[in-house]
Amino acid sequence: MKIVNLDHISSNSLLPEVKDAMISAIAEDLHNPASQHKAGEAAAERLETARAAVATLLNAAMPKEIVFNSGGTESVNHAIKGVAMANAGQGNHIITSNIEHNAVIRSLRRLKAQGFNVTSLSVDKSGRINPQDVADAICDQTILVSIMHSNNETGTIQPIAEIGKITREKKVIFHTDASDSVGIVPVDVQDLNVDLLSFAANSFYGPTGVGGLYIRRGTRIFPLLDGGVQEGNKRAGTENLLGIIGMGKAAQLAIRDLPARYEHLKSLKNQLIRELPDYVDEVIINTHPEHSLPNLVSMSVQYVEGESVMLMLDDDDIAVSTRSACATGSLRASHVLLSLGLSHADAQGTLVVSFGFENTPADITKFLSSLQNVVTTLREISPLYGKTTKSA
Amino acid sequence: MKIVNLDHISSNSLLPEVKDAMISAIAEDLHNPASQHKAGEAAAERLETARAAVATLLNAAMPKEIVFNSGGTESVNHAIKGVAMANAGQGNHIITSNIEHNAVIRSLRRLKAQGFNVTSLSVDKSGRINPQDVADAICDQTILVSIMHSNNETGTIQPIAEIGKITREKKVIFHTDASDSVGIVPVDVQDLNVDLLSFAANSFYGPTGVGGLYIRRGTRIFPLLDGGVQEGNKRAGTENLLGIIGMGKAAQLAIRDLPARYEHLKSLKNQLIRELPDYVDEVIINTHPEHSLPNLVSMSVQYVEGESVMLMLDDDDIAVSTRSACATGSLRASHVLLSLGLSHADAQGTLVVSFGFENTPADITKFLSSLQNVVTTLREISPLYGKTTKSA
Repeated sequence: MKIVNLDHISSNSLLPEVKDAMISAIAEDLHNPASQHKAGEAAAERLETARAAVATLLNAAMPKEIVFNSGGTESVNHAIKGVAMANAGQGNHIITSNIEHNAVIRSLRRLKAQGFNVTSLSVDKSGRINPQDVADAICDQTILVSIMHSNNETGTIQPIAEIGKITREKKVIFHTDASDSVGIVPVDVQDLNVDLLSFAANSFYGPTGVGGLYIRRGTRIFPLLDGGVQEGNKRAGTENLLGIIGMGKAAQLAIRDLPARYEHLKSLKNQLIRELPDYVDEVIINTHPEHSLPNLVSMSVQYVEGESVMLMLDDDDIAVSTRSACATGSLRASHVLLSLGLSHADAQGTLVVSFGFENTPADITKFLSSLQNVVTTLREISPLYGKTTKSA
Repeated sequence: MKIVNLDHISSNSLLPEVKDAMISAIAEDLHNPASQHKAGEAAAERLETARAAVATLLNAAMPKEIVFNSGGTESVNHAIKGVAMANAGQGNHIITSNIEHNAVIRSLRRLKAQGFNVTSLSVDKSGRINPQDVADAICDQTILVSIMHSNNETGTIQPIAEIGKITREKKVIFHTDASDSVGIVPVDVQDLNVDLLSFAANSFYGPTGVGGLYIRRGTRIFPLLDGGVQEGNKRAGTENLLGIIGMGKAAQLAIRDLPARYEHLKSLKNQLIRELPDYVDEVIINTHPEHSLPNLVSMSVQYVEGESVMLMLDDDDIAVSTRSACATGSLRASHVLLSLGLSHADAQGTLVVSFGFENTPADITKFLSSLQNVVTTLREISPLYGKTTKSA
């Protein structure tokens, strides 16, 4: 049975052209790009072709501002710890938000144990940071601002360009985690005024476990991985060349297809939000109506437990993601959803439905119809449902 | 023109079965192993199959002692920095050797800037550490000993098991970098008495940019990459699942084929060392006659410059590696070769010839015959050759 993947935020499929590029690279037995002989040079050429494609996708001023690595988490760790170490002489204050990915939160926790101070800004009810709050938080000790581009639980997009204007004016290094944005919405490092931008190949239909960090020329940062002179001395270690070739091909396709891809995803999202009330009532939509990714809808289905919904949809061969505490291995409800002002109970009923290039309107219809059955079944046995609403 | 790859220490080819495993995984569109639905569970199963294979290859007590990551350099950084951070309360002294890979040297340099003290032990003329020197260097501040298993420039294998007995007795954490050993010679974490062991898939004919760190249960170490709960909370970030599947298949094959592989490589090495004097004289063999990898010969060809030899062999479609200063992007001769007592001039003429499963005796003959021509040509124009020897 074919599974309908509506959990693209956890894993996007590879585009057919990306698969072809990786399969033919596997057949080629490419050598080490660091080697000086012909075989090495041929490998280095492939590496630089991929770098140029990613640089174009992000509108970097030059390819060498792109440093390849093992993905979004490594990029975030590199950006935050690398800037903190390199600029510790200038100050010890870092600004972030309450809704960041754990890679940011836990990297900063590590730095706090080493004496850094962190200001974590709240978001408004729609999940967005107020740029003025960033301006107000900057002091003479501030060495870094790190605010995510889009949130992987709600899809909400932050006002990065506006924040970037402030950090540039105040000469503070600005990092954004765009691991869920690149290839889905336009991401232009010049427009965004960022110095560092984390990305992962999988968001633009490249393989998992490969990505990179955009480092604007002149940004003061130490490597996270010390060793050889790979990646312009910014990230040591023999490259995952097969993954990078896949990422490069995916970047080329993203440049070409981004507008069409956006329209396709947006129409699925609109369909889902428009038709949802015909199938299930008492659902809170957590995704910002305007400033949000086109490929994701976060919905809190009231009076049910998200993990149960997810597992019952899975029985119908539909994959979605939930942010209920049990499912994510955490004991607490999602910090992102609580930051939006959601109650613990509503946070527990949250589903993240996310689309990819291969989804169709029929997939949305199948999901909605299955969701209707699942929610009806679960609400019938819910001790809460009917006690507090008129729908019972 | 097919290139004869005698530079396997820089890049091993993928085994045909590894290629097949990766190509079929690409076709499968595997999901994220962290996801709780069926598609995620299927991906997690593939991850754990690979982990079990690698655990068996290294004779780890349990699969969860294997932490997957982006390769040897990340493993070394994780081992050294992770132990230093987690044990800083116990002491600030680390012991290493003079012939380590740059990943070790530069990670330690970073720690020195943070207040750690490092003792770097010399090797004897054959390139080996004396275990007694390790015992003598350990003091009550010592929190880590890091000594490589085999050297990537000379192939020399260190007395790790003997050092491990000492560190175990003195209750000091012991890391070995086995990035060039696994799959080439038997590597058994129980026999070696190590707490941490870095490995890279490419040494056992898996893909580049993927590897892992063996972490003995109970070893006190912090993550290097903070974020999600992947890899038993020891290494955050969505996994390079395609690379890991390739590594798992390569581990299965290494378990099965290691003895035959060893014999094949050893016979090529013996042929090269035996026949070399018939083609070129005045060559110093830097590889230990007994305690060394079977797949590598380091030779210093006197009165010539290694980079010129490498480039002229490349014209004959033969890939080898050189440790001359120009070729490696460094301005100084190799620290490993100088540690052996080689002169700067001899170090400059050093070639590293390394074999893989697909090499044949004919490849060695082709190399020797080409080397003879190249060296004759270069020595004819060398200002040094003939002045100091009777061969002119």
